[in-house]
Amino acid sequence: MGQLDSIGSPADVRALTPRQVQDLADEIRTFLVEQVSRTGGHLGPNLGVVELTIALHRVFESPLDTMVFDTGHQAYVHKLLTGRSDFSQLRRKGGLSGYPSRAESEHDVVENSHASTALSWADGIAKANQLQGRGDRSVVAVIGDGALTGGMAWEALNNIAAGQDRRLVVVVNDNGRSYAPTIGGLAHHLDTLRTTQGYENVLSWGKRTLRRSGTPGRMAYDALHGLKKGIKDVVAPQGMFEDLGIKYVGPVDGHDEPAVERALVRAKAFGGPVIVHVITEKGRGYTPAEQDIADRFHAVGRIHPETGLPLAPSRFGWTSVFADEIVRIGRRRKDVVAITAAMLQPVGLAPFAEEFPERVFDVGIAEQHAATSAAGMAFGGLHPVVAVYATFLNRAFDQVLMDVALHRAGVTFVLDRAGLTGDDGASHNGMWDMAMLGVVPGLRLAAPRDEQTLRVALREAVDVDDAPTVVRYPKGAMGDEIPSLEDVDGVDVLARHGGQGPSVLVVGVGAMASTALRTAEILAAHGLRATVVDPRWVMPVPAALTKLVGEHDHTVTIEDGVVDGGVGALVGQRCREAGISTAVQAVGIPRQFLDHATREQLVGTLRLRPEDVARDVLTALGKAV
Amino acid sequence: MGQLDSIGSPADVRALTPRQVQDLADEIRTFLVEQVSRTGGHLGPNLGVVELTIALHRVFESPLDTMVFDTGHQAYVHKLLTGRSDFSQLRRKGGLSGYPSRAESEHDVVENSHASTALSWADGIAKANQLQGRGDRSVVAVIGDGALTGGMAWEALNNIAAGQDRRLVVVVNDNGRSYAPTIGGLAHHLDTLRTTQGYENVLSWGKRTLRRSGTPGRMAYDALHGLKKGIKDVVAPQGMFEDLGIKYVGPVDGHDEPAVERALVRAKAFGGPVIVHVITEKGRGYTPAEQDIADRFHAVGRIHPETGLPLAPSRFGWTSVFADEIVRIGRRRKDVVAITAAMLQPVGLAPFAEEFPERVFDVGIAEQHAATSAAGMAFGGLHPVVAVYATFLNRAFDQVLMDVALHRAGVTFVLDRAGLTGDDGASHNGMWDMAMLGVVPGLRLAAPRDEQTLRVALREAVDVDDAPTVVRYPKGAMGDEIPSLEDVDGVDVLARHGGQGPSVLVVGVGAMASTALRTAEILAAHGLRATVVDPRWVMPVPAALTKLVGEHDHTVTIEDGVVDGGVGALVGQRCREAGISTAVQAVGIPRQFLDHATREQLVGTLRLRPEDVARDVLTALGKAV
Repeated sequence: MGQLDSIGSPADVRALTPRQVQDLADEIRTFLVEQVSRTGGHLGPNLGVVELTIALHRVFESPLDTMVFDTGHQAYVHKLLTGRSDFSQLRRKGGLSGYPSRAESEHDVVENSHASTALSWADGIAKANQLQGRGDRSVVAVIGDGALTGGMAWEALNNIAAGQDRRLVVVVNDNGRSYAPTIGGLAHHLDTLRTTQGYENVLSWGKRTLRRSGTPGRMAYDALHGLKKGIKDVVAPQGMFEDLGIKYVGPVDGHDEPAVERALVRAKAFGGPVIVHVITEKGRGYTPAEQDIADRFHAVGRIHPETGLPLAPSRFGWTSVFADEIVRIGRRRKDVVAITAAMLQPVGLAPFAEEFPERVFDVGIAEQHAATSAAGMAFGGLHPVVAVYATFLNRAFDQVLMDVALHRAGVTFVLDRAGLTGDDGASHNGMWDMAMLGVVPGLRLAAPRDEQTLRVALREAVDVDDAPTVVRYPKGAMGDEIPSLEDVDGVDVLARHGGQGPSVLVVGVGAMASTALRTAEILAAHGLRATVVDPRWVMPVPAALTKLVGEHDHTVTIEDGVVDGGVGALVGQRCREAGISTAVQAVGIPRQFLDHATREQLVGTLRLRPEDVARDVLTALGKAV
Repeated sequence: MGQLDSIGSPADVRALTPRQVQDLADEIRTFLVEQVSRTGGHLGPNLGVVELTIALHRVFESPLDTMVFDTGHQAYVHKLLTGRSDFSQLRRKGGLSGYPSRAESEHDVVENSHASTALSWADGIAKANQLQGRGDRSVVAVIGDGALTGGMAWEALNNIAAGQDRRLVVVVNDNGRSYAPTIGGLAHHLDTLRTTQGYENVLSWGKRTLRRSGTPGRMAYDALHGLKKGIKDVVAPQGMFEDLGIKYVGPVDGHDEPAVERALVRAKAFGGPVIVHVITEKGRGYTPAEQDIADRFHAVGRIHPETGLPLAPSRFGWTSVFADEIVRIGRRRKDVVAITAAMLQPVGLAPFAEEFPERVFDVGIAEQHAATSAAGMAFGGLHPVVAVYATFLNRAFDQVLMDVALHRAGVTFVLDRAGLTGDDGASHNGMWDMAMLGVVPGLRLAAPRDEQTLRVALREAVDVDDAPTVVRYPKGAMGDEIPSLEDVDGVDVLARHGGQGPSVLVVGVGAMASTALRTAEILAAHGLRATVVDPRWVMPVPAALTKLVGEHDHTVTIEDGVVDGGVGALVGQRCREAGISTAVQAVGIPRQFLDHATREQLVGTLRLRPEDVARDVLTALGKAV
C-alpha cells in the first residue's frame, strides 16, 4: 500500500497532496474491510468517517489540538493516522483496544465511555486550555446525531455557548437515516438543515469572495454568518444551534474531503464555539454493501447504528427469550408498553414493536427520560417495561430512585447484557447494576438462571404495580435448563450433596447457578455437605434465604456483579440483622475496571471459575486443598 | 377573606368573574405572606405564580387534566385552589408537605423530585392518556427556566416533539433575571424571546380576528403560527422550540391573569405539544420587597432562585468553613478551579468566585456536565472541585464512574447537606452518597467530623491527582472541635474507656463522631471497654481500621447514610476478606424514603440516638439493658 504505509503521525497526513489524500482514503477503506472482517469490530461507523478523520488531522494538530470522539468506536481511522496500524489483535487481550486508549497513544483522550459525553469533555478541556495559556489551541469533539439526543449533550451545548472566547469545534457526524422517526424533535431539525440545498454553495462562494478581499478569520466569518444573515436566511432556516449562540457551518458532504477541510478551516479560524454539521454514510465505500442498497451492511452482519453491535440477537440467547415472552405478555396485558433508549433491536423489542407498534416508545439515547416517562405512564395506568443494557441504567439512577421508587410506580426494568460482557471493555460490562440498585427502597430484582425462570420472572415483574421491578440477565447464549428439586418459600433448591463434613450453602445468583452447581460438586468431592440454591428474586433478600443461611455452617454467594454492596453483601447484612452468625462469603467481581478481553478470560482472571470459588471456600473453612 | 374562603375546589375557581379573580389573587398573596413568614417556606417562588396557577385551574380541569410542577416547591397556590388552606403546620411533621403530595390530594401527581423531571413525567402521562382513550385530556407541565438547563428536559422535549397528536402544554415559568450569565445558551435564547416587543399583541389581534371569522381550534392556531409565518417572523425570531417542532406561544406577562388565560386557551385548543412562555417575577406583590428594588427578598431573607433556600450559609456552619478553606487553597494552588450546578451561593462558592472569578464555572442545573467537564479539566491540567448538594450527585453517578474514575481524573467532589436534612422531605436527604459511591473503583471518600478535619480533608483531597476524591458533610451548624487522642496509621482515636467487659470498637463516620462518643460512654457505664475511632477517610476502608476491628470483640459503625452498602457494610466485607471474624454491626439509615420532619425527629424515629445505638450493641452482645 502506498500512502498508508507512509503515515507514521498526523504530520505525514498534513504533508499529503489532495491527490494523495484521495489515495489514502481508498487504502484505509481497503485496510479496514480486510482487517475488521477478520477480527470483528465496528466496521460501518469507521468506513463512514474516513474522509472526516483525514480532514480533522490535516486541519488540526493533535495532540496540541485535542480530539475527542464520542463513544469512541469510530476511532479506527484516527488510530491508523496516529501510528497504529497493527489491527491483527483488535479488541483482543493485549491487542489494540476497540476504543481510544491513553496507554496506546498521546493522541487519545477519552478512552471508553457511554454516549453523549464528548461535548462535556471538550468543554472542560477548552476551559483548561484557556486558563493555562493554551487558548490558541482548539478542542474538537466528534459526536453522532444520535448521541445528541442524550441530555448531557444539551447541558454541554448550553455551557459551550457561554464560552464564546474558547476555541471549540463540535463536529456533528450525521448519518441520520438510521434513526427511527420516533426520536423526535432534534432528528426533525437536523433533517431540515440537511435537506436545505445550496446552503454550502452560497457559503463557499461567500468565502471565496471574502478571501480575495483579504478579510481574515473571525471577521470574515461574522460577515458571512452574522452580519449577512439576510443571505443565510434565504437558503437555510435559522437553526436552533445559532439560537443557542453557537455558530453553525453546514451541512457538508462528509465524503468530500476538501469540502470537510474547508468547513473545518472556517470553524477553526472563527476562534469561538462552532458546530460543523457533516453528513456521512455508514459503510461508505464497502463494495458488497454498495451493491446491496436495501441492506447496506449485509456482508458484515446487521449492526446497530450507534453501537455497531449486531442487530439480530442470537436465536437461542437470553434476548430472544425476552423478545418472545414480552410479546406473549403484551397479548394478555393491554396495559403493558415497552420503552427503549435507541436500542429497539439489540434489546429484543422488535417483535413487540411489530405486533404492538403503538405500544412501544424509542426515546433516543435518553435513559433518564426513559425512566421518568415510565413513571408518568405508570401513573396513567400503564405498566411500562424499560429494556436497556445493564450498564446504561447507571445514567438513570437518580430517576429510578426519585421518580420511580419514591412514587411507588409499577415500572419493570429489563437489563440485558448484565454481568461480564468482555471485549467491549470497561464501559460495557454490566457489573454495577445490583450494587447500585441495592440502595433503592422497595425495588425488587430478579436474576433468572435459565429460559424458564426468565419467563416466570418477567410475568411476576409485570404483576407488581407499586414498586420498581428489575429482571437482569447476561449477554449471549443461554445454557440448558436447570431444574429445581424443591421450592423453599420461593427459593429454588438446585442440588443437595450429602456427606460428613461441615455444611455449605452455595447461592448462585442468576446465570451463576451453573457455577454454583459445579462448585458444590467440587466441595462435595472434598467431603463437605453442600446445598445449592437460587433465590431468583434476590432483592429484597428473601426471608427463606436468610433462614437457609442460618441452617448451614458456611455460606458462599456467587454473583457476576461488583461484590462491594452486591447481593452477597446484602445477604450478609440481613443475616447479621436477623442475628444469624453464619459467615457469608461473597464472591463476585472486585471493584475495578476491566480491560477488554473475552468473557472466559475475565472469568479466569477474576477467579470466578468453580474451582476458584471452591478453593476459596475450602480456604475459608480451614481445609487443606 | 372573601374569595379565598369560597374556594373549595378548582370548579370554584372556574366560576369566578374576572373581577373576582383579581380579588382572589390579592387575597392569596396576603395569605401566603402571613402564613409562610410564620412557618418558613418557599415564599418568593409562590408569590411569582399566583396568577399563573389561577389561570391554569381556570383553563384546565384537574384532575381530569393533569398538572405537574417541576421540583414542586411552587405548588402552594395550587394547594390553596385545591382545597388545602391550613398552612399552619407547613413543612412540619403531620402538616402540609412543602411539595405536592398524593396523600394530600387527587390533584397532586409528582410529589418530590429533583429538578428538570416534569417534562418527562408529562410525556409519560400524555402517552398513557392517548393509549387509554383519554386523548382529549391535557397534561400541563410547569417548569422554571433554570430547570430547562437540565439534560432531562432536553431528552423530554425531543420526545414531546415526536408526539404531535398528544395534548401536552409546557409552561415555562421564566424569571430569568435571577440566573448568572454563565449558564449560557438557553438563557440567551429565552432572553431574546423575552425582549421581543409586540409579539403577543400581534398574536392577540390575529386571534380576535380569527375568532370573529369562526375558525376553530387547531386550524386557527395553524393559521396564526404555521401558515402565516410571515407575520410571526416580522415580530419575533424563529425560536429553537419551533425548530424542534414544538409550537411556541409567548412571551406572556405572567401577572396579567387574563393574558395568561388567553395563552393557555390557545395552547389547549391546538391539541398538540405547545410551549407557553410566561414571564413572572419572584416575590411579586410582597410590599416590603417592592419597596426595596435593589434587594427584592430582603424581608424574607435571601433565597436561592431555584430552591428558595437561604442564600447566605450560616456563619459557623460546615458550608462557611468550606467557603473559607477553598479560598485559601485557591490562593496557594492556581490549578484549583470550582464548579457549581446553579448553586454558587448555597454551596459556599461565592467568596471563591469573588476572588477568582475566572476560575469558577456555574454550569446550570447540569450535574452530569459538571462531572464530565471536570474530567476534561483534569485532563487539561487543572484540579476541579465540584461542589453540590449530596443528593444531587445521584444524577451524575454514571459520569463519576465512567468519566472521572475510569479515566483516573483528579476531581474533588464536595458534598454539602449529606446525611439527614429533614424538612425538605425525601428527595433532599443526602443519604445515598456513600452507598452509591462505594462501588466506584479508586474513589476516596472523606467524612470530616469538625472544622479542623474538614479543612485537612479538603487539602488532602486536592492533592490527589489520579482518582476522584469526595469530601462530604452535613447541613447546618457545626459542633465543637473533637480532638484526637492518637493517630493510628491515619485513624483518629477519639476516646478509650477501660473496664472489665468485652471490648467494643465504636466507629463514628463524619459528624456521627459525637454520637459515637456518647454511645461509648453509655457502653462504658454498662461495664464494657469501648474505643471510639474516626477513620476520616472511609473509602477505601483503611487497613488500620480493619486491624482495629480484629483487636476488639465487637464493632459498631455509625453513619448518617443508607446502611445497605454503606460504610459499615464495606468495613464488614473488608474484614471478612482479611479473615477477621469480629462481628461488624452497621448502624445507619434504613433503606426507605423519609417523610418531612426535623432532623432531630428523624434521628429519633430512625433510632440513631446514642442511647438507641448503645442499646442495640448491648442486645447484640447478649447483655441485659
